[in-house]
Amino acid sequence: MSTELERLAARLREFARARDWERFHTPKNLAMALSGEAGELVAEFQWLTPEESLDLDPATLARVRSELGDVTAYLVRLADVLGVDLVEAANARLDVNDRRYDPELYRGSARKAPPLDP
Amino acid sequence: MSTELERLAARLREFARARDWERFHTPKNLAMALSGEAGELVAEFQWLTPEESLDLDPATLARVRSELGDVTAYLVRLADVLGVDLVEAANARLDVNDRRYDPELYRGSARKAPPLDP
Amino acid sequence: MSTELERLAARLREFARARDWERFHTPKNLAMALSGEAGELVAEFQWLTPEESLDLDPATLARVRSELGDVTAYLVRLADVLGVDLVEAANARLDVNDRRYDPELYRGSARKAPPLDP
Amino acid sequence: MSTELERLAARLREFARARDWERFHTPKNLAMALSGEAGELVAEFQWLTPEESLDLDPATLARVRSELGDVTAYLVRLADVLGVDLVEAANARLDVNDRRYDPELYRGSARKAPPLDP
Repeated sequence: MSTELERLAARLREFARARDWERFHTPKNLAMALSGEAGELVAEFQWLTPEESLDLDPATLARVRSELGDVTAYLVRLADVLGVDLVEAANARLDVNDRRYDPELYRGSARKAPPLDP
Repeated sequence: MSTELERLAARLREFARARDWERFHTPKNLAMALSGEAGELVAEFQWLTPEESLDLDPATLARVRSELGDVTAYLVRLADVLGVDLVEAANARLDVNDRRYDPELYRGSARKAPPLDP
Repeated sequence: MSTELERLAARLREFARARDWERFHTPKNLAMALSGEAGELVAEFQWLTPEESLDLDPATLARVRSELGDVTAYLVRLADVLGVDLVEAANARLDVNDRRYDPELYRGSARKAPPLDP
Repeated sequence: MSTELERLAARLREFARARDWERFHTPKNLAMALSGEAGELVAEFQWLTPEESLDLDPATLARVRSELGDVTAYLVRLADVLGVDLVEAANARLDVNDRRYDPELYRGSARKAPPLDP
C-alpha cells in the first residue's frame, strides 16, 4: 500500500514522462525550481508583520496555498529523482535537533545551538 | 488513522511546544526558514553540471538528504500553522498544469505556458 | 576612470581567472550561488522581530555584513558575465515603479500595484 | 563626491520617504524581498543548460536584466538601512577567499575549502 507522498511522486513522474520532460528534471534544475518557488512564497509575507501573517485574508491565503503546492510538488519530485524518503530525512533531522536543543536550556530562546559534531 | 505527514506535523508541533517556540513559528518566520534551507539545498548543486547532479558522491548525497529533511520539516510546520493540506495543494497545482501544458504541444519543450486565467 | 563596481568586477574576473574557474561561472551557476547566499542572509533574520532586525548586536551585524559581501560579489560577477550594468538596471526598475506607485495613492500602503503594461 | 551606489541609495531612500514606506523597510523585510527577487532570477535559468545560460535570447536577457535591477535595488536599500558599505563588505570577503583558495591548490577545482578560522 502506497503512502500519499508516493502517490504524488508517481503522478509527478507520469506528468514529466508524458511531456518528455525527464531530461529537464535533473536534481540541479529541480533544486533551482524549488528555490524559485520558495522565493515566491517568502514574497507573499515580506511586507506583513509576523502577527498579520497569522491571520491572512482569503485572497492571500489562496496564493500562499498555491505556492505551498508548487514547493511541495518540486520537493517531492526532487526527492523521487534522488531516491530520498522525505519523511525519513525530516525525522533524522528532528532526531539531531532533539539532542541539540535541550528543552530546558533553550526554552523560549531563538539562539542557535552549536552543531553536535566537530 | 493519520498519514505520515500528519504524524510529522504532530512531532513538529510537540517539538515547538516543549521549547515554548510557538511564538517564533509565525508563517512569516517559517517561510523565511524554509527559504533559507532551500538556499542551502541549491548551494549543494551550484558548481555541479546537471549530469553530475544525477550521480552524487555519498558525502554530497548525505548533505543533500539533510537539507531535504530541513526543507520538509519547515514546509510541514508552515502548512500546519496555516491549516493547509500540502498534498491537496500540490494536486490542485497539478490539475492546473495538466490543463496548461498540453502533452503534445509542450513535448520536450521547457518554454513557459501563458497563465490560464486573466 | 572606472567606478567602484567596475573595479570590483575586475577583481572578481581576475580571482576566477587565476584559479581557472571561469567554466564554473556560467550565469546559471552564478544565479544559484547568489540565491544560496540570499538564503544565508534571510536565515540571519528569521527569528528576529522586524524591530529587533533594526538593532542588531555586533556579532549578528558582522555575520550579516559578510553575507551582504557574498551576495554583492556574486551579483557583480553575474552581471559582469552577462554584460549588464547593475546601476542602470536598478534605475530602470525604479523608473517603472515611480510610475506604478503614485505617492498619494500608495501612501503607507504595502499593497501591490498592478503591472503597468506588457 | 558621491559614488553611483550612494546616488542609488539616496534615490531609494527618497522613494520610500515619499510613500511613507520606511516602516515596511526593516532589515528583516528587505532581506525577504531580496530573497524573493533572487528566487525570480534563479527561476529564469532553471531549465536552461549552463551553456544556454551563456547565450540568452533577447527576451530572456531583458527579463534577467529586470530581475538583476530588482535584486540590486533591494540589496542597496538593505545595506543603506543597516549602514553597511557593500563594496567594502565584498572586498573583505574576497580578502578571506584569496587566503582560503590558494590558486595552485584549487586550480580548476570546485571543491569547498575548509573555513579559515575555527
